[in-house]
Amino acid sequence: MRVLAAAALFCLFGQAMAQTPTTPEGAKPMLTSQDIRAVAPALERYAQGIVLGDLWKRPGLSPRDRSIVTVAALIARDQTVELPNYLNLAIDNGVKPAEISEIITHLAFYTGWANAMNAIPPAREVFANRNIGADQVPPASGPQLPLDEAAESQRASRVEQQFGQITPSLVQYTTDVLFRDLWLRPGLAPRDRSLVTVSALVATGQVAQITYHLNRAMDNGLKREEAGELLGHLAFYTGWPNAFSAAPVVKDVIEKRPR
Amino acid sequence: MRVLAAAALFCLFGQAMAQTPTTPEGAKPMLTSQDIRAVAPALERYAQGIVLGDLWKRPGLSPRDRSIVTVAALIARDQTVELPNYLNLAIDNGVKPAEISEIITHLAFYTGWANAMNAIPPAREVFANRNIGADQVPPASGPQLPLDEAAESQRASRVEQQFGQITPSLVQYTTDVLFRDLWLRPGLAPRDRSLVTVSALVATGQVAQITYHLNRAMDNGLKREEAGELLGHLAFYTGWPNAFSAAPVVKDVIEKRPR
Amino acid sequence: MRVLAAAALFCLFGQAMAQTPTTPEGAKPMLTSQDIRAVAPALERYAQGIVLGDLWKRPGLSPRDRSIVTVAALIARDQTVELPNYLNLAIDNGVKPAEISEIITHLAFYTGWANAMNAIPPAREVFANRNIGADQVPPASGPQLPLDEAAESQRASRVEQQFGQITPSLVQYTTDVLFRDLWLRPGLAPRDRSLVTVSALVATGQVAQITYHLNRAMDNGLKREEAGELLGHLAFYTGWPNAFSAAPVVKDVIEKRPR
Repeated sequence: MRVLAAAALFCLFGQAMAQTPTTPEGAKPMLTSQDIRAVAPALERYAQGIVLGDLWKRPGLSPRDRSIVTVAALIARDQTVELPNYLNLAIDNGVKPAEISEIITHLAFYTGWANAMNAIPPAREVFANRNIGADQVPPASGPQLPLDEAAESQRASRVEQQFGQITPSLVQYTTDVLFRDLWLRPGLAPRDRSLVTVSALVATGQVAQITYHLNRAMDNGLKREEAGELLGHLAFYTGWPNAFSAAPVVKDVIEKRPR
Repeated sequence: MRVLAAAALFCLFGQAMAQTPTTPEGAKPMLTSQDIRAVAPALERYAQGIVLGDLWKRPGLSPRDRSIVTVAALIARDQTVELPNYLNLAIDNGVKPAEISEIITHLAFYTGWANAMNAIPPAREVFANRNIGADQVPPASGPQLPLDEAAESQRASRVEQQFGQITPSLVQYTTDVLFRDLWLRPGLAPRDRSLVTVSALVATGQVAQITYHLNRAMDNGLKREEAGELLGHLAFYTGWPNAFSAAPVVKDVIEKRPR
Repeated sequence: MRVLAAAALFCLFGQAMAQTPTTPEGAKPMLTSQDIRAVAPALERYAQGIVLGDLWKRPGLSPRDRSIVTVAALIARDQTVELPNYLNLAIDNGVKPAEISEIITHLAFYTGWANAMNAIPPAREVFANRNIGADQVPPASGPQLPLDEAAESQRASRVEQQFGQITPSLVQYTTDVLFRDLWLRPGLAPRDRSLVTVSALVATGQVAQITYHLNRAMDNGLKREEAGELLGHLAFYTGWPNAFSAAPVVKDVIEKRPR
């Protein structure tokens, strides 16, 4: 698996592809090493030396988690050109196809319906190439994870009090569709679902929503060190400004939690 | 018209298309039902049960308004893959081609020139398929709506005072191009122009600009209940974080206005 | 050179192209004048009368700078359809191919890796059409600009103090990769690198990061008047809300600096 992952990463930055790879009709072609070098040779040096040579190997966030974070960021930002490569890498790093399916469904709600729709063709392509069939994809509905009724009721009544008079539909859907349905789907562990959510928030500059979701993520098992590594990782994939705009909120959340 | 609209919505989420539809050269192909089910069957359940089965049917915001809001959000976020479907649905729901033309022109200024340019090919395709000719599209210039000189002078002098020394070009263009030209074009009612503007602001996370434009929208006739429904609708199309980041501002605006 | 630039600008808004131009396989086709007129004739009037007829000719920001700002904004917002036209215009306006290469590399870090990758094909196309070879592109590494050790140490220790405990990887990469490597690359003058950075921040709504980078830009030689013109220019290319959300911060920075 490690060999495969290395090969996939190698591809990600155009090192291994001498020619433009074929793509599904209408899709933008992926980059070759030659393309990058013809325009910006330094990008290749940074990719080799820092992104591949250091970032993905850092402790504090596993390669599997880094794959989840990267895939979530790309879908959240509607950047699908290299998504097939990163989906392949994710599977090589231990992310199950069922989890990829749930990540896409989750992000329909946390980044917008069209973002999820735009992730379907790349995922379908990767699934088809790997012979991943319907049996490896979670059903439309089925048994749910258990719900912490007390915590959910508290959340619901807080939001109802704040916004129930102003936007009843938003409040109702948040309860019925998100917290009593989507979050209880068993195909993606709550901790990973939180990791996807926080990654999407950082990736799209949604600083105001980080406090709630990072706390939830840490309640769901995300470690303090992992939250910090997530920022370093997302700096590369979503730009330094997003990482630095999120950093004070992440700091605040971490410092206010009991250790 | 209702039958057509239902059929269009049916298409939107891939239910009716068994095969990949043909697209103009270079465009990304639209999704089929099969594609979605192969990756994320739950997305189809949510689309059928909640988006189609509930959201679009809710009172408080008409199907025509929901179409305007959705089209504005997609253009604002540069998500054009499903735009032809939503443009067709908009026309079925009573949005006139002239209004679609004005929505695109308006969003050039409120979301960036390239966003409007990227909306041209899908609109052109829909117009061509429906035999919508130049006679149904507003002229480049012509008679304007009447201007409330007092209110506009007050706005202009307030902005001049704030930013006239810092960025004279921005201040000048805002007066000359936006408020004394674009907003006075008769092809889109001021209330609908405001609906487009507020939708674009929520869709792109421009929270700081909502207070002014939501007040303007309500001055232009947008109802309190419609503003609330808009958030519930945009949660699906632009993601929950955008809706929840906008909610406190919407609440504040509504509560501060005389009832 | 002026004639070329005028011709390029003429093309930008579809005036000169009677037919759909050919594009690299998979790329979205550029718009023709006919396309725009069929949907939104007013857009053409605004483009001719204001954007071309006035904005690009304003004093306060040179055509070369306006090209850098526009290219940075388009890459930052991942809007590549018209990027070839604007890259050609940039070269006509005096931006060197080496500078374009550095702008793309710089924006990998300031707007996300995929944004830079998506700019490679349009840049490669333009470079190939103009016979711009490897000799005109900066090497992957080489001699660096001198570093102001005192200022950089101060910056680094301030950030270390703020975030070193929370996200050591982000802090470390910021020092090692950005300020002791990327910013010292000689292919793009620090003042222009700052112009790119500030443009990207405004273009992506990263208001919280403007204070630091606009001060740095002005330390690097950006004039107060240029900062103001930048906002007026970016209003058209990134939407009015981004310009108005940035304006109070730009005002604050300018007013607090010694004149």
